[in-house]
Amino acid sequence: MKTTLSSKTKIVVIGPDHPFVIIGERINPTGRKMLAAEMAAGDYSRVESDAAAQVSAGAQMLDVNAGIPLADEPAILAEAVRRVQAVTDVPLSIDSSIIAALQSGLEAYEGKALVNSVTGEEERLEAVLPLIKKYGAAVIAICNDETGISEDPDMRFEIARKIVRRAEDHGISRENVLVDPLVMPVGAVPMAGRAVFKLVGRCRDELGVNTVCGASNVSFGLPGRIRLNATFLAMAIALGMPCAIANPLEEDIRMTILAADVMMGRDENCASWLAANRSGEEHDGRRRERRTRRRTGS
Amino acid sequence: MKTTLSSKTKIVVIGPDHPFVIIGERINPTGRKMLAAEMAAGDYSRVESDAAAQVSAGAQMLDVNAGIPLADEPAILAEAVRRVQAVTDVPLSIDSSIIAALQSGLEAYEGKALVNSVTGEEERLEAVLPLIKKYGAAVIAICNDETGISEDPDMRFEIARKIVRRAEDHGISRENVLVDPLVMPVGAVPMAGRAVFKLVGRCRDELGVNTVCGASNVSFGLPGRIRLNATFLAMAIALGMPCAIANPLEEDIRMTILAADVMMGRDENCASWLAANRSGEEHDGRRRERRTRRRTGS
Repeated sequence: MKTTLSSKTKIVVIGPDHPFVIIGERINPTGRKMLAAEMAAGDYSRVESDAAAQVSAGAQMLDVNAGIPLADEPAILAEAVRRVQAVTDVPLSIDSSIIAALQSGLEAYEGKALVNSVTGEEERLEAVLPLIKKYGAAVIAICNDETGISEDPDMRFEIARKIVRRAEDHGISRENVLVDPLVMPVGAVPMAGRAVFKLVGRCRDELGVNTVCGASNVSFGLPGRIRLNATFLAMAIALGMPCAIANPLEEDIRMTILAADVMMGRDENCASWLAANRSGEEHDGRRRERRTRRRTGS
Repeated sequence: MKTTLSSKTKIVVIGPDHPFVIIGERINPTGRKMLAAEMAAGDYSRVESDAAAQVSAGAQMLDVNAGIPLADEPAILAEAVRRVQAVTDVPLSIDSSIIAALQSGLEAYEGKALVNSVTGEEERLEAVLPLIKKYGAAVIAICNDETGISEDPDMRFEIARKIVRRAEDHGISRENVLVDPLVMPVGAVPMAGRAVFKLVGRCRDELGVNTVCGASNVSFGLPGRIRLNATFLAMAIALGMPCAIANPLEEDIRMTILAADVMMGRDENCASWLAANRSGEEHDGRRRERRTRRRTGS
């Protein structure tokens, strides 16, 4: 199955036989006070620099969120979308929980966007899916509904199935729905990782849809978060997850994803891996290997 | 499915619902000239120190190999087994391609050993399996035969099936056969990783046997080998591989395996992860995270 997104000039294909797609997560004022204040004040310089930095670090798409309390989110999201499209050529994920903001973001967007997100809640389904159809976009389907988030992967799967079917009722085909299995913190929910792995497989095999997730929540409250997030992503990739909302500026995340693409036979001639290892990362890699060799005394 | 191995005093259980078992790979003179010379001269001090170091680094089992050209391998392997059992209490994997060496190693061993290995070659099957039965051991079944190593995972699976059946003909039950899917270098065989992932799943689902591998070959000829090996292991763990022959002294391998156990819900209360992050590794983890946070400017 293939999900195609586009900007004015660029097409990105998400699917099991394509290199893993990192959707850069940084353009999000949540928990970034300075960015929030700047965006509310009409200063998009950091939005533009974050966009450029993530793309040069390997993000094939960017998530754009303008969730700022008491601000005019529809106007700010639309302007952020315009600014990001002016400085980069990658397709965007338009990210809001406010329907009016999704609409103005889609209105401002040039190309086929990804919309982040719709849940299984009736009211959300009937508000978001018509927008997806109207603008010819794709959508992230989150596996929760009025009853909240179930720890039972089978219950979450039924919500995914419901959203996929409802999307089809609205004339939106499966390739334009990316299911987010919902990543809970393994520190609090020991089976959270296994639940995601199971859902990734079921969505692929039983629904024929691609999956996506935001990985960082999995390590919430634990030390060594970056290694946990990177390891989780590698494991999800092994089960068939073709993309994730992540931070490509985190070297260990980016390099582990590149390594996983090599293992999935999706990095032709290991070109991306070799290129990444010729640049800064090679150094770290070498240092780490030397240190290890010394320790192992070989 | 559970595979149980034992030393004089310790039992190790290998299976999908148990923490991943690292079988320490270091006691192997192949490519270690100094160790080979010492073992050939009857000096087992490095064998003993490598054994202790790997166990303290988290190896729950140790592989013992005495493959030294022109040396009396049966005598050296038996002595190495005795020495290692004298300084550690973990079960051992007795590793040789020489039947007489396997026999003398099994004769010297106290407990239920793992034998590394048997292939699908008729002559090997009929020489090794009777030893496994006689000594009540378990065996690693390698997916190659007289025709060599196939790149086709389905052909390799048929060899695994053949070995499992032949083992049963010899009175050896499935839980005492660990299938090694054979790890080829992804640099030369792009689908090598996917082939292993597919075989791990098929062996679990269709044969009901556990799997094992030596991971390091996967990265042969590529830069950043440790990250490739660690990522490969995390992915194999996600598919259900319960153990591997690896080097626990490689920090990134050990920590990634611990992270993968957390993701599989096999590290109760994340106790092993928290302990590892309280010790030396925490430091690296923290440093890496700080560096990343600076870069991402958050």
